[in-house]
Amino acid sequence: MPPAHPFDDDKLKEECGIFGVIGVTDAANFVALGLHALQHRGQEAGGIVSHDEEHGFNSARRFGYVRDNFTSQSLMQTLPGPLAIGHVRYSTAGSKGPTQIRDVQPFFGEFSMGGAAIAHNGNITNADALRRELIERGSIFQSSSDSECIIHLMARSLQRNIPERMEDALRRVEGAFSVVAMTRTKLIGVRDPLGVRPLVLGKVADGWVLSSETCALDIIGAEYVREIEPGEMVVISAEKGVESLRPFRPQKSRFCIFEHVYFSRPDSIIGNRSVYETRRQIGVELAREAPVDADLVCPVPDSGTPAAIGFAHESGIPYGMGIVRNQYMGRTFIEPTEQIRNMGVRLKLNVNRALIKGKRVILVDDSVVRGTTSRKIKEMILDAGAAEVHFRIASPPTAWPCFYGVDTPQREKLLAATMTEEEMREHLNVDSLRFISLDGLYRAVGEAEGRNPKQPQYCDACFSGEYPVEPADQIQKGFKLKTAAE
Amino acid sequence: MPPAHPFDDDKLKEECGIFGVIGVTDAANFVALGLHALQHRGQEAGGIVSHDEEHGFNSARRFGYVRDNFTSQSLMQTLPGPLAIGHVRYSTAGSKGPTQIRDVQPFFGEFSMGGAAIAHNGNITNADALRRELIERGSIFQSSSDSECIIHLMARSLQRNIPERMEDALRRVEGAFSVVAMTRTKLIGVRDPLGVRPLVLGKVADGWVLSSETCALDIIGAEYVREIEPGEMVVISAEKGVESLRPFRPQKSRFCIFEHVYFSRPDSIIGNRSVYETRRQIGVELAREAPVDADLVCPVPDSGTPAAIGFAHESGIPYGMGIVRNQYMGRTFIEPTEQIRNMGVRLKLNVNRALIKGKRVILVDDSVVRGTTSRKIKEMILDAGAAEVHFRIASPPTAWPCFYGVDTPQREKLLAATMTEEEMREHLNVDSLRFISLDGLYRAVGEAEGRNPKQPQYCDACFSGEYPVEPADQIQKGFKLKTAAE
Amino acid sequence: MPPAHPFDDDKLKEECGIFGVIGVTDAANFVALGLHALQHRGQEAGGIVSHDEEHGFNSARRFGYVRDNFTSQSLMQTLPGPLAIGHVRYSTAGSKGPTQIRDVQPFFGEFSMGGAAIAHNGNITNADALRRELIERGSIFQSSSDSECIIHLMARSLQRNIPERMEDALRRVEGAFSVVAMTRTKLIGVRDPLGVRPLVLGKVADGWVLSSETCALDIIGAEYVREIEPGEMVVISAEKGVESLRPFRPQKSRFCIFEHVYFSRPDSIIGNRSVYETRRQIGVELAREAPVDADLVCPVPDSGTPAAIGFAHESGIPYGMGIVRNQYMGRTFIEPTEQIRNMGVRLKLNVNRALIKGKRVILVDDSVVRGTTSRKIKEMILDAGAAEVHFRIASPPTAWPCFYGVDTPQREKLLAATMTEEEMREHLNVDSLRFISLDGLYRAVGEAEGRNPKQPQYCDACFSGEYPVEPADQIQKGFKLKTAAE
Amino acid sequence: MPPAHPFDDDKLKEECGIFGVIGVTDAANFVALGLHALQHRGQEAGGIVSHDEEHGFNSARRFGYVRDNFTSQSLMQTLPGPLAIGHVRYSTAGSKGPTQIRDVQPFFGEFSMGGAAIAHNGNITNADALRRELIERGSIFQSSSDSECIIHLMARSLQRNIPERMEDALRRVEGAFSVVAMTRTKLIGVRDPLGVRPLVLGKVADGWVLSSETCALDIIGAEYVREIEPGEMVVISAEKGVESLRPFRPQKSRFCIFEHVYFSRPDSIIGNRSVYETRRQIGVELAREAPVDADLVCPVPDSGTPAAIGFAHESGIPYGMGIVRNQYMGRTFIEPTEQIRNMGVRLKLNVNRALIKGKRVILVDDSVVRGTTSRKIKEMILDAGAAEVHFRIASPPTAWPCFYGVDTPQREKLLAATMTEEEMREHLNVDSLRFISLDGLYRAVGEAEGRNPKQPQYCDACFSGEYPVEPADQIQKGFKLKTAAE
Repeated sequence: MPPAHPFDDDKLKEECGIFGVIGVTDAANFVALGLHALQHRGQEAGGIVSHDEEHGFNSARRFGYVRDNFTSQSLMQTLPGPLAIGHVRYSTAGSKGPTQIRDVQPFFGEFSMGGAAIAHNGNITNADALRRELIERGSIFQSSSDSECIIHLMARSLQRNIPERMEDALRRVEGAFSVVAMTRTKLIGVRDPLGVRPLVLGKVADGWVLSSETCALDIIGAEYVREIEPGEMVVISAEKGVESLRPFRPQKSRFCIFEHVYFSRPDSIIGNRSVYETRRQIGVELAREAPVDADLVCPVPDSGTPAAIGFAHESGIPYGMGIVRNQYMGRTFIEPTEQIRNMGVRLKLNVNRALIKGKRVILVDDSVVRGTTSRKIKEMILDAGAAEVHFRIASPPTAWPCFYGVDTPQREKLLAATMTEEEMREHLNVDSLRFISLDGLYRAVGEAEGRNPKQPQYCDACFSGEYPVEPADQIQKGFKLKTAAE
Repeated sequence: MPPAHPFDDDKLKEECGIFGVIGVTDAANFVALGLHALQHRGQEAGGIVSHDEEHGFNSARRFGYVRDNFTSQSLMQTLPGPLAIGHVRYSTAGSKGPTQIRDVQPFFGEFSMGGAAIAHNGNITNADALRRELIERGSIFQSSSDSECIIHLMARSLQRNIPERMEDALRRVEGAFSVVAMTRTKLIGVRDPLGVRPLVLGKVADGWVLSSETCALDIIGAEYVREIEPGEMVVISAEKGVESLRPFRPQKSRFCIFEHVYFSRPDSIIGNRSVYETRRQIGVELAREAPVDADLVCPVPDSGTPAAIGFAHESGIPYGMGIVRNQYMGRTFIEPTEQIRNMGVRLKLNVNRALIKGKRVILVDDSVVRGTTSRKIKEMILDAGAAEVHFRIASPPTAWPCFYGVDTPQREKLLAATMTEEEMREHLNVDSLRFISLDGLYRAVGEAEGRNPKQPQYCDACFSGEYPVEPADQIQKGFKLKTAAE
Repeated sequence: MPPAHPFDDDKLKEECGIFGVIGVTDAANFVALGLHALQHRGQEAGGIVSHDEEHGFNSARRFGYVRDNFTSQSLMQTLPGPLAIGHVRYSTAGSKGPTQIRDVQPFFGEFSMGGAAIAHNGNITNADALRRELIERGSIFQSSSDSECIIHLMARSLQRNIPERMEDALRRVEGAFSVVAMTRTKLIGVRDPLGVRPLVLGKVADGWVLSSETCALDIIGAEYVREIEPGEMVVISAEKGVESLRPFRPQKSRFCIFEHVYFSRPDSIIGNRSVYETRRQIGVELAREAPVDADLVCPVPDSGTPAAIGFAHESGIPYGMGIVRNQYMGRTFIEPTEQIRNMGVRLKLNVNRALIKGKRVILVDDSVVRGTTSRKIKEMILDAGAAEVHFRIASPPTAWPCFYGVDTPQREKLLAATMTEEEMREHLNVDSLRFISLDGLYRAVGEAEGRNPKQPQYCDACFSGEYPVEPADQIQKGFKLKTAAE
Repeated sequence: MPPAHPFDDDKLKEECGIFGVIGVTDAANFVALGLHALQHRGQEAGGIVSHDEEHGFNSARRFGYVRDNFTSQSLMQTLPGPLAIGHVRYSTAGSKGPTQIRDVQPFFGEFSMGGAAIAHNGNITNADALRRELIERGSIFQSSSDSECIIHLMARSLQRNIPERMEDALRRVEGAFSVVAMTRTKLIGVRDPLGVRPLVLGKVADGWVLSSETCALDIIGAEYVREIEPGEMVVISAEKGVESLRPFRPQKSRFCIFEHVYFSRPDSIIGNRSVYETRRQIGVELAREAPVDADLVCPVPDSGTPAAIGFAHESGIPYGMGIVRNQYMGRTFIEPTEQIRNMGVRLKLNVNRALIKGKRVILVDDSVVRGTTSRKIKEMILDAGAAEVHFRIASPPTAWPCFYGVDTPQREKLLAATMTEEEMREHLNVDSLRFISLDGLYRAVGEAEGRNPKQPQYCDACFSGEYPVEPADQIQKGFKLKTAAE
């Protein structure tokens, strides 16, 4: 089992990336490359399932990076065949003890009409209730993952073929889910009715690809075709190509706006918008909403860079690398010494003293979660002799946890849940602190009118506390929804 | 033994970083942190030697990153004591077979007056001749490293104490060398008479630090005191503090100018100049020397970034992240599949298509060695729909190998050794290609008058072919010096 | 995954050893020691499940020896609690591909009334049919093991507590099975109605132990209480001590006679008889049945030793170590060289030339399976200069496969299935070859009248072809039972 | 580094086995097999050096068993060529800290006339003095091994070829040594003038073999030719075959008598005597010297077995396996739990209770060193219900440490150094305890007249305190030789 990372990144963490291919030679190789490009969505473990006529379903699951596992000939030749799916995952906060290899997806089930494998990005908000019901009926769970419910629901479906069993199962499931699955001959992709998590369709040679993001199409030279639509299920086979089904009751889309802010890679395209350009535009909006007189615009690497470029361009203040990242920082500290543990962020970041000294510095970061890293960065900047420190944050205050597949601290750990903007400024002890407004963020993603409060165009629950799907399991465990008064 | 990296970076590679501390509790922990900050100077292996009264000299040498080896309690507690030195290394091209753990420094020798450990950054240009002579006299070499000569020369010195034996030894040695060494009670630092490789002195609490670069002082919170001067030897002990000796005949300094261009970290300070600022200034000079009408200035990540910022600022053309780096790229591909091997640079870099499309793009890179990576990047940019591609290179053409501690291909593999600038442009098939001039580079490092051709202020042999120390072993093996006609 | 052993032992292989403890501090430590003592029953992998109030059920499964895995503090402290069970296993011949870690027992299931873990020694002869039925109803199998059926049958039982669910499940199961299982508070042991596989009860301090053999009681200092009886189920808890249930229809016992011949350790006690003494007695019987004039009685180490001692004693011919075993032979040859592969038995055994030379040698071995090893040993003995070679085998000809938890080759690979004793002698090319008679073997295990052909006292299917439980799955796959004519 | 074995074997430990081959294809494969057969002489680590025309000298050194390292194709193909030597080693008691891989032989040195590798069994009694002298002259030692002196002495020799340099070096060396060495074209074997350690010559196909024992000739199918004689040096080459030299002043042979008692494998032949037969004969002598009325003769496995067979045969008391060995006991306990650590000998041995109960038992063991294991075995036997316990020891009391290549405790830890036979009996608390007499032992090895006290035929210093070579380094460290009064 992998060690927990001793260095708190103080970021929200996407829990998964998914990828599938059909109709190519050695599909698992493509999946490995795709997962490598999606590694930012989950770094704890990965798994690939392939199918070929001779061996049936083949599977490999490993802790650690894709590059360290799914690149060797000896492993990859155990995953032959023209059809494969894969998954990368983060560990889930709050689970009892460390992740076991049996928690690593894709999950596989053998049904009377043949086997199926399934990989899931998102979170099932009624998973606890479903699990209790399934155990009552005699299902045996092998993992602690909410996603395993889907395969058990499929096993008990009365339908005769696997795609129909999957429809059956997913209709019982609540929450956010993008799914790639496979049978012996079919690749299947589904997005939940609100389309909270991304899933795109690509084409490579004679084959088809499903991926969480477009950046993973680029790495295998696949052409971007379109997004899977919210509530859509595609069933792809050699004979019939791409079939589109609509198993769910139609609803208005509520895509996760934080994918634009932080989760997705800047070279991905979401909803026909460049993620990089959106982030640069957030910087532009920030410079308009919260200008300040200063000498240097400096990104907190690496996620703050596009917004910092936009802020510098709009404000006319020079852009510079005031903080330098150590490229050789990894995740693999095993039982570190006390001294190493205490280094924290300094192992990863260093201040460019000569540039910072005597300057009024604007630090542009993507978000503030617990504020722990922000404090340390501010101290480093001041130690280096900065005259003033101004934080500009490329997202609104993160005041609510996400229950749709993102690892967030409990609400009381979120700085913005307990403090006003001014209190946070005092807490961080900086000259100024400003977050982009929710309307400013909506403008940056292309909604010229800003947020529609009656029918918000995105899921922004982490900022607004308005949850488009009721988090049933969490409420059962005592989570309090936003009251009218808040 | 570690696998060779299958993905050619097409960069010159610094072969070593060195670090030493005296006068602190658990000095080896400081050395581990320092080496982590110097990891960019050598990633293949690392070693630390410490000394404490109870156990004497303690040593650990490992393949792989500092963070993966020298962070665990179980290893670090085998390295106690108030005095320690360490080393990180690249593999040396051309050695017979893979590096053995016995080639990893520091080297240790037991003399009749006690032991000494030594770590070396640079290259001894008469090492072959010295080795033959020493073997003839009965020395037994354990490694294939040129640095082992020093310890054998010390063993045979007639002097009575270790610092004097080291003086004795280093006077027989030709080439470039910065050395940190230790006895039971002393930390020693030396730079060769030309001062080709860097070495700085720092102060931490009651102790003293020697480091290849200042960025490694920052990580342990040490204060930068000064550079060790060319030809200087410092002997540091608890009783006498820092003593400065001058064992060599004085010469004019010839510091490696490529440390400014690429080797050193941008947050280091060399000769009282910020490396970042120098690189930014190279971009400014380039924009003046080789302007071009375009829509976007885009760095080749990550080393081209400061020059690109300078170029954008000077030219007024917008700066943008046209190429995105995959942060999860590592070195650990063991027997990769054919498909993975063929991916090359695409595993590491992806084009930000939405930004590039239709634009005239200026790509700013730090250097062109063999040109292999430059070609692939150009293709990626064009595939993404760029209208024009202009390369601007932040160093003059690299036409000669370095024999002073840098891993360079043989001369005939260097693109600039066999082609003119225009031939290179055709070879890379780009709209324009321009290198900064040698004088421009000298101006950027602060020599307002440019290069003094009679007595160049720096070692620039890789650009000029003018070698300040005769590469005796190489000439013996057939290397041809620059002729008057060239 | 572990490598297959390249060196054919040419032995039947027991597939499992099981062990459980309740009522002691750190029960898992006792289980580890017990499994170490039972390692001869299964060397491929092992697993332990424990339960404690704080963490619930804890589990660890590993490939390799117990001593290499379940001895370290770091692993064992993940298995706290006063109640634990464990399992060691052989790989099963004929399974598709190598064993996966998910095939390693104990198996665990979470039911609505709490969890249970189960470990099984034996073989379920209707497992294929059960598996098809369970999948049809929606169960998802995670392993290829026949034993997983039991946990799924339990999950679907309508009974309200786990012991009753286990009764329910085991009544659907056919074949040979000794089982140890545990709930949060109970240790459970069961033997099938015929009692084919062993299981004994022991007492240690205030706790209770279940073990495949008594030798594993000795290692933890436990007192031997009694055997679990055929068809008995014991449920052991802190409150009620040992409760004995009889879930099955009573039948006459048919214990595996080969446990006496080879599987069990010589220091174990079965049915109040010393295994060592039984084997020595087999040697005595052999000397009476098949005397021969010779100079030396020599065991084939190590399993032939007790019978050789008995043969020497009865015949008056001197006993000597004519064959010496290399103690450093292990199982861990990874991709061995051709030359190593071809060494076969010589890596493990060497002839004591000085002792053998010129002598008429009686070699006493426990059994002949394919005869491959016997041939090689004979050649070694003759190469060393033996005058004559006489084989005496401490079991009747092995002519039928075992389907009750022992790994046997397919019938056509068994030498005795296709040859008469004289043909075997010619095949092995020895001066004489004699097996003990079936009646002689029964006499040696204490049946003064020999075998009762109408109601055999033991399961001796591997010798007689008379299977006490119909091997249903095997017949389905084409296995032919003995005909009246045979 | 390997963990120390937590279970005290309470045996003297041979420190090395050596093996070399010339004139065969893939000589390293033969060496690996030979070392596997010599594994009982050293289990901590092993090394092989080979030479082939293309790559020169090739080397691999590993901790752990030969079977776990030198069997894989991937390693063995790095050791090509027709000439190779190898070494297995025990750790040496008293060295500072754990063995480093650099302490593992063969050692290699590059001289001006070419390279040589050398492997050594024995101990150099003036190594400390030689090391000081060599360091004084400028040699740098890489290991803590006494054997490294030889290669440095060779490096400094004035002779022109390697065999002559080796003669030169070995004439400076005192103590016990059998050496195999190789140049690019020659295999060399040497025994010290007293011939304390064994070395034999064999022939395989067109090639020649040197080995510590004949059992390692058997495994590769080599024919035993003769022993290398005390003081002899053989130089073997393709052109000249075996040349015999006599570099030392002739002395009377003093072969180690403990090789007969314990170190050598029973299937080896020493001085034309079967080791097994000698040990059996020791049992016969013991039965004559120290008869006792009893019911069972029981060996302490495995080393006591041949003497127990002899004792039983001579006394007429039945022989039986009263103690059973767990075959799955290894050396690889990493940080074992307290409970495991306390198990000690019970992890390895179990009493055959049914056989022992109520009997008067004679336990035959090879030696008593500290007596710790003997006490535990006695307790196990009594716990099992033995009526009486009589120890018969197949060697005289071990009262003096060995300084000739055997790992013995310091003198004060040897039971026989501080107690009389009767005191030892009381200490062990057994009914009787008898050691074979020194004369009896000499008779068993074929000296009909017993030991010649004026000119002992063997080295028996561990029993007699008469050291044939003065242990100079030890005396320097304070060791007291036997006085006239003792």
